[in-house]
Amino acid sequence: MNSHTVKAFDNDIGRLRGLISQMGGLAEDAIARAMQALARSDLDLAEQVRADDKRIDALEAEVERLAVQIIALRAPMAVDLREVVAALKIAGLVERIGDYAKNIAKRVPMIESEHRIEPISILPAMGRMAGDMVRAVLDAFAARDFAAAMRVVESDTALDDFYDSIFRTLVTYMVENPRTISQVAHLLFVAKNLERIGDHATNVAEMVYFAATGTQMADRDRGGEQEQ
Amino acid sequence: MNSHTVKAFDNDIGRLRGLISQMGGLAEDAIARAMQALARSDLDLAEQVRADDKRIDALEAEVERLAVQIIALRAPMAVDLREVVAALKIAGLVERIGDYAKNIAKRVPMIESEHRIEPISILPAMGRMAGDMVRAVLDAFAARDFAAAMRVVESDTALDDFYDSIFRTLVTYMVENPRTISQVAHLLFVAKNLERIGDHATNVAEMVYFAATGTQMADRDRGGEQEQ
Repeated sequence: MNSHTVKAFDNDIGRLRGLISQMGGLAEDAIARAMQALARSDLDLAEQVRADDKRIDALEAEVERLAVQIIALRAPMAVDLREVVAALKIAGLVERIGDYAKNIAKRVPMIESEHRIEPISILPAMGRMAGDMVRAVLDAFAARDFAAAMRVVESDTALDDFYDSIFRTLVTYMVENPRTISQVAHLLFVAKNLERIGDHATNVAEMVYFAATGTQMADRDRGGEQEQ
Repeated sequence: MNSHTVKAFDNDIGRLRGLISQMGGLAEDAIARAMQALARSDLDLAEQVRADDKRIDALEAEVERLAVQIIALRAPMAVDLREVVAALKIAGLVERIGDYAKNIAKRVPMIESEHRIEPISILPAMGRMAGDMVRAVLDAFAARDFAAAMRVVESDTALDDFYDSIFRTLVTYMVENPRTISQVAHLLFVAKNLERIGDHATNVAEMVYFAATGTQMADRDRGGEQEQ
């Protein structure tokens, strides 16, 4: 590439990364608002989270168009190609994180009832943990910080343990309060969605690591993937 | 493109499509075997389904490498680019269908117990329905038959209704048999995985339609997506 082409490529990559950071901000926000809607039985907020997911989808489509255009026009090699492909995959993962937040929002009307079920109160802490992972991995992406990405992967174990504990708590609660089983079953899915958000943040971390180092993180069989 | 380039491109596309058909066959097989493992509490078969998922993952990685290479080397335009991008996305969707089958297989050891729980007997029919959708959509892809793809999208409603019915059945069973709640909770996730397989087959159908016609199917808010 000549210096003009290099500069054009850098601009393209900058735009790609900017779009992904935007997506990440929206996804993190969607998790926080979905959990808030759940905790407060706020149907309007839940509906808004669902509607706003379209913005994340639109950004992903933009990333895809731009990435394909970069590959076709600039035919980047090695490190540069790796960066474009990583960006494309990260956008796909963040879009799915947004979907999980949307799915949580969709459960809010199903869980609402006159009798507030108790175990709902343990889910926000898990939601914060998942949201923190998403923020941390997008910071690692923005800073191209592969050590920070590795820490995100490690933190997924704590989220998996949290999920296992919530699963047991919810099952016990169902056994003791059979009238609430239908609602609590929806909470099981909410907890599972949060656990999957952690898995996807982990996958993003692996792509950040790959883009930065050119090698895959060691192949691990993850707790969360084990369970679901 | 000159005629040599056209022929090379056609060969590339042929390879891409061949890899995806292979992936589809493995995914369809994984669903059938996971459901068999579940129905018979066959832990060995379940373990095999988990292990075999790596083959689907490897094929997806190959599709990705080949697609990026085609875009970079041949810089295809319009219809041709659309076909490559569709293939890339379809491979991603089929890989996720394989993951859902693997997730079902992972539940088998958690559900096993001395007391066989009854509702397990309704799940194989749902598994067949989901597997049929996967086969139908890959046939539509192989034949570039967008009308067949549309029929797959329509059939997803039946799978969603099946899921809703199973959800209610499982909740009722839990209420009446509190001792089985923990196992039946795993069955809820199995049913949800099958419902998600239907959503992904639907997404594949949409990509087949898009590759064939250049337009998106009308934007619909799908039942299954509604629920989870």
